[in-house]
Amino acid sequence: MAKQLIGKMVIGQSGGPTAVINQSLVGAILAARKHACITGILGAHHGIAGIMKEDFIDLTTQSVEQLELVAATPAAALGSVRLKPGRAECEKVFEVFKKHDVRYFFYVGGNDSAETAHIIAEMAKEANYDFCTVHIPKTIDNDLKVTDHCPGFASAARFVALAFMGDDRDNNALPGIKVNVVMGRSAGFLTAAAALARQSETDGPHLIYLPERVFNVASFQQDVRDAVAKYGRCVIAVSEGITDKDGNPISTSGERDSHGNIQLSGSGALGDTLAALVKAAFPGEKVRVRADTFGYLQRSFPTIISPIDAKEARQVGDFAVNHAATTGAPGSVSIRRLSSVPYQSECFITPLSSVAREATEMKDEYINAAGNDVTQAWLDYVAPLVGELPKIGRL
Amino acid sequence: MAKQLIGKMVIGQSGGPTAVINQSLVGAILAARKHACITGILGAHHGIAGIMKEDFIDLTTQSVEQLELVAATPAAALGSVRLKPGRAECEKVFEVFKKHDVRYFFYVGGNDSAETAHIIAEMAKEANYDFCTVHIPKTIDNDLKVTDHCPGFASAARFVALAFMGDDRDNNALPGIKVNVVMGRSAGFLTAAAALARQSETDGPHLIYLPERVFNVASFQQDVRDAVAKYGRCVIAVSEGITDKDGNPISTSGERDSHGNIQLSGSGALGDTLAALVKAAFPGEKVRVRADTFGYLQRSFPTIISPIDAKEARQVGDFAVNHAATTGAPGSVSIRRLSSVPYQSECFITPLSSVAREATEMKDEYINAAGNDVTQAWLDYVAPLVGELPKIGRL
Repeated sequence: MAKQLIGKMVIGQSGGPTAVINQSLVGAILAARKHACITGILGAHHGIAGIMKEDFIDLTTQSVEQLELVAATPAAALGSVRLKPGRAECEKVFEVFKKHDVRYFFYVGGNDSAETAHIIAEMAKEANYDFCTVHIPKTIDNDLKVTDHCPGFASAARFVALAFMGDDRDNNALPGIKVNVVMGRSAGFLTAAAALARQSETDGPHLIYLPERVFNVASFQQDVRDAVAKYGRCVIAVSEGITDKDGNPISTSGERDSHGNIQLSGSGALGDTLAALVKAAFPGEKVRVRADTFGYLQRSFPTIISPIDAKEARQVGDFAVNHAATTGAPGSVSIRRLSSVPYQSECFITPLSSVAREATEMKDEYINAAGNDVTQAWLDYVAPLVGELPKIGRL
Repeated sequence: MAKQLIGKMVIGQSGGPTAVINQSLVGAILAARKHACITGILGAHHGIAGIMKEDFIDLTTQSVEQLELVAATPAAALGSVRLKPGRAECEKVFEVFKKHDVRYFFYVGGNDSAETAHIIAEMAKEANYDFCTVHIPKTIDNDLKVTDHCPGFASAARFVALAFMGDDRDNNALPGIKVNVVMGRSAGFLTAAAALARQSETDGPHLIYLPERVFNVASFQQDVRDAVAKYGRCVIAVSEGITDKDGNPISTSGERDSHGNIQLSGSGALGDTLAALVKAAFPGEKVRVRADTFGYLQRSFPTIISPIDAKEARQVGDFAVNHAATTGAPGSVSIRRLSSVPYQSECFITPLSSVAREATEMKDEYINAAGNDVTQAWLDYVAPLVGELPKIGRL
């Protein structure tokens, strides 16, 4: 039942930034300016953390020109936060919302942000406070449930594909064995995008290892020996989240992040460990082995932006606000793919509970039987999102 | 004295690839096709190594369309090599040249390649064999003598500037201390290009450490503490080649490359060591510290190409061949900057001996007194080469 709420809106950004997260922010702001029922637009600095401190910026007056510049700039312009709030913190947030007559809350983030939005929505319901909260999806990991894919993923995937394309040419020029570690704790989507770098049968990456499959050191070493025998070189894509049969990381820096998770990014530990394993696979031989860890570059690189990703990131922000202003109903914005060729999609609303907390992984049909590469089904899924890539010239 | 040689030419590519090294190759090929005195164009696979094995590809028949695709593709399309040939190897090369009636040799590379070209030129002179060898410059390190700058540098510098621009926004969104390790064994040019990422006073990189200055751990730790006190975060650019007062690397993987040099790239060792030093600078405090090593991405990334770099890389190849075909005289192609605003340059020939073997470093006037940043003079030098960068949008 449609119910129009009259009051202010708060928008915040949460979790790891993406190259297009500001498109969603600007999409939401511009949509909100068209709805008279939204009486003010407050941006929260650093998400939930800023709301608790009432650290807001008024977003009603910026020029469209300034906002468009923000939209095209990577990483969360409002500031982001890594915080899974508990009940007490959500209550504090709810208090602030009531104090400022906030009736709409838009949270741009991943499944943890959807969970936060869900808790606050439930609180409002219990308190009989007319309130609408909509989660706006973003994550380079592409691991949200329900949606076909997540805004932010395709641009990061484009970076990974281009990086492998260039690095494979580099490796072709100076042959050796190259390990590239890509972000992705539990889902291999981003690492799997490396396969888009291939334009001929001998192009790398020649091997792809994903967190969805157990990483076996002996199989890995044999795979590399086989690839070197076949291609005279080997480029390897590895997800930072690979684990052994007991679920333990292959290598880490030993540090933990603010969620208590083992720190995977921002360290060269896994790459260096894998390089040592590769060297050990060629005893007595002189092999050139190098490892790079793509690190934070892949999620915030300016100019490497998928046009479809930018467009959809804008759309989910716009859709969230229009949905909230016209229905007053909570939810999470998802993307439905209508067709891959030509690529077409539409937004729809799914319950917050269907997206909150849990995440997805790559489908089995996207991973080859040996667990060291992807399938054509994966390429068919990912290629339209990433957009056209430059053609490799060769002699 | 102008002397026209009639015979075949060989062209090879050497050393670490760049994003525009194939522009030089294609510039040389297309120029050679216009000179009747050049009776055949042979491309050597993997430089000197391929010449010794007579491993050539005929470059007289490829379509311009195919060549243009090659020109736009990063990394050496002929294959590269890391080999400082000795006298015996140069003699072998010279034998092959005589056997195939090669009268022109073009070698695209850094100072080691200029040295190789120089040795072979001297051999030909001693043997009274009419022969012309021209070195075509390339290196992302920008460390060749005589020339204002080296083709390949500006595109790598553009990558570094964009990477820091995005990563600084990322760090601004999720504040912490971030160390980024950039390529450059002895010269800090590429690391110094990180400064182009700054568009406002609070933008990073907040500290820049170059191999031209001794790296002192205690000063580094104090610098970081000062920056965090001032900005609430800190983004740091560090050259992989930084050394202590005795000239020892701060941290390495312990491996050596094919030249016997300590391996700096393709390992996360330095970044991880610096991250640990930063953590130690904040005893008892919870600080978020991450380190990324840009690695090989910065030298072969497709689509991140400075337009001026692409144009000049083409020009040096073209100039080398025209010079050789019309004068028969050996030399190395250099670039003279005519003006920075608007940017204008021209090619000229310098003796091989003036470029061979030795390399340059950053001028003192480009580095600040504290040795932890660059100067305006550096920015004035580098900005026109890298080209326009996207404008950062902020709220």
